[in-house]
Amino acid sequence: MQTNTLELAKELISRRSLTPDDAGCQEILIDHLEKLGFKIEKMRFGNVDNFWARRGTTAPIICFAGHTDVVPTGPIEKWDSEPFTPTIRDGMLYGRGAADMKTSLAAFITAIEGFLADNPNHNGSIALLITSDEEGVAVDGTVKVVETLKARNELIDCCIVGEPTCVTKLGDMLKNGRRGSLSGNLTVKGIQGHIAYPHLAINPIHIAAPAIAELAATRWDEGNEYFPPTSWQISNIQGGTGATNVIPGEMNMLFNFRFSTASTVEGLKEQVHSILDKHGLEYDLKWEQSGKPFLTPKGSLVTAVSQAIKTVTGIETELSTTGGTSDGRFIADICPQVVELGPLNETIHKLNECVAVADIEPLREIYRQTLVNLLAQPG
Amino acid sequence: MQTNTLELAKELISRRSLTPDDAGCQEILIDHLEKLGFKIEKMRFGNVDNFWARRGTTAPIICFAGHTDVVPTGPIEKWDSEPFTPTIRDGMLYGRGAADMKTSLAAFITAIEGFLADNPNHNGSIALLITSDEEGVAVDGTVKVVETLKARNELIDCCIVGEPTCVTKLGDMLKNGRRGSLSGNLTVKGIQGHIAYPHLAINPIHIAAPAIAELAATRWDEGNEYFPPTSWQISNIQGGTGATNVIPGEMNMLFNFRFSTASTVEGLKEQVHSILDKHGLEYDLKWEQSGKPFLTPKGSLVTAVSQAIKTVTGIETELSTTGGTSDGRFIADICPQVVELGPLNETIHKLNECVAVADIEPLREIYRQTLVNLLAQPG
Repeated sequence: MQTNTLELAKELISRRSLTPDDAGCQEILIDHLEKLGFKIEKMRFGNVDNFWARRGTTAPIICFAGHTDVVPTGPIEKWDSEPFTPTIRDGMLYGRGAADMKTSLAAFITAIEGFLADNPNHNGSIALLITSDEEGVAVDGTVKVVETLKARNELIDCCIVGEPTCVTKLGDMLKNGRRGSLSGNLTVKGIQGHIAYPHLAINPIHIAAPAIAELAATRWDEGNEYFPPTSWQISNIQGGTGATNVIPGEMNMLFNFRFSTASTVEGLKEQVHSILDKHGLEYDLKWEQSGKPFLTPKGSLVTAVSQAIKTVTGIETELSTTGGTSDGRFIADICPQVVELGPLNETIHKLNECVAVADIEPLREIYRQTLVNLLAQPG
Repeated sequence: MQTNTLELAKELISRRSLTPDDAGCQEILIDHLEKLGFKIEKMRFGNVDNFWARRGTTAPIICFAGHTDVVPTGPIEKWDSEPFTPTIRDGMLYGRGAADMKTSLAAFITAIEGFLADNPNHNGSIALLITSDEEGVAVDGTVKVVETLKARNELIDCCIVGEPTCVTKLGDMLKNGRRGSLSGNLTVKGIQGHIAYPHLAINPIHIAAPAIAELAATRWDEGNEYFPPTSWQISNIQGGTGATNVIPGEMNMLFNFRFSTASTVEGLKEQVHSILDKHGLEYDLKWEQSGKPFLTPKGSLVTAVSQAIKTVTGIETELSTTGGTSDGRFIADICPQVVELGPLNETIHKLNECVAVADIEPLREIYRQTLVNLLAQPG
């Protein structure tokens, strides 16, 4: 009997899986997958539940990836219905995780079920990589599963991450990469002194200002076919003790690059140091790289998913690399083709998170059609 | 019988007159002054003791001005002797207020005493303007006494403020003015946003940086014969909430001008607004003027004091307008000639504040000789 995607989504939403607690979601998925002939490998790291499921032993491996954990609800009294009681109103399914990304998980399962009904002897393998630590620190989740697979040389050929990617209509955006994230913690040093005797002091804010102006005006790269130009932004700046008659001894700022594959981490670091040095600053600069960029150029996976979207919705999808980081950055380490496709992302992490009920079956159908495009035996 | 300056200084230092508490210091001074024929007018405003003392009814009025209050001791265990127990070690008199400015107060009294012994029928009037609110908020102190005198048109011709002014040797520096102080509280406005979507935000730190750089590089004036060029310094800067993925919505900074008489308050404000406007910033800017500049050009007072210094110490004193603000700024409102002269200022406000015992009688003698130069009848 065919599982109902909406009902499965509701069952998952009703679990209070606040990151990193899985709250039993993965057992629900595993029950379905075992019935479909998947071999399940649970991978618990620290207090995080993950699993790797695979059906088939041959290449190519087509993987669906996602997470069962959700972000906190925020003030519950501001929700129009209880966030862990899936509720349909005016054609929308409300609940924490409805869009990010329990509906995608349900659609994975029913898409695979539908595909297998027609294609019991498909080519290659179908896999799932599921974590409950995507919304949190993401230390014991996908990154650890990927390390395990990599250590035994079990590489993935294509991966579809179920993150919500669409903007105004289901299918209007397919993410084929994400920018990298590189952060800096900069302390510019001066010499503290009394504001009435500035010739005895060096004001770090004054000497840093021209360098900040130059950094802010720098065009780091032009981006490329897939990426917008690299951006550099200061998130925090602080100097001074509150006393109004003291020139501070140092000034601190935090900044962040979102960088395209047109730049390298080393190249960006060098440019920043070069600008700071040119302005004669004495400084400490600690770097932290929180995400490598990844890119899936047009190829078999982009084609298969784009065609599936076109078949189901009639939309010519837009390829995009915008937005924050996702687990795609980790999977790209063992998978040459990673894309992200899920429902509309307008309400994610917000109060009254929801998906359109009318989008649920088409989403399942896009995933199913993608499998057909990639793994069906010629009829 | 001649009062001993050192003993009177010690008597004053032993009073715990933490600003704005006078702790009985003014009664000690008043006792001496009444015996010398001064008419005393106590002027208590709020919780601050002040007095105005005058001997004589004719012009010119030569005034000595000063304060009995002292700054806090700081950690008492780090003093080598108890700060309110005047102690002589290795030729230095230690105690809170020894340099700033109880020794000057004692020297005022004994200088006047000595002068009157030789010149009982001097020209003009001798006056004292004493407050116990110079080190604190300075709201109920000298400024209020000056308002009172001004209201009844009792103007001062010459004033010697006993602030410690000397650098390495008694008599090496005479202050004939002070810069003004003008402060600004600037908030530059941007648009808050996610650091991954900078095109939807305006980073106030980025847009302010070129304006800050220009302000820091601006030459506001060239100073003049008496003043160094006006200086502009940022004391505090703050932007961001601590979150590293958010472009802040605004940035705040506090800055301060120390300005010479070569610039005007209105002129400086206009220049700052003009630079901020030129850079297209949206901002709030609150101004606060904490001190007007004052200047006593070379004239009868500077000549009288300089000659007294030369007579007593052999030093050609240096005229200077450096340093922070003092009560001189208030007195200048009713007095065309104000100078500041006192002992070495190296230890003021610090642990182990002190004056050289060997400087005490010469300081008294400089004050006395100044009175001779200004008020003695030709012999």
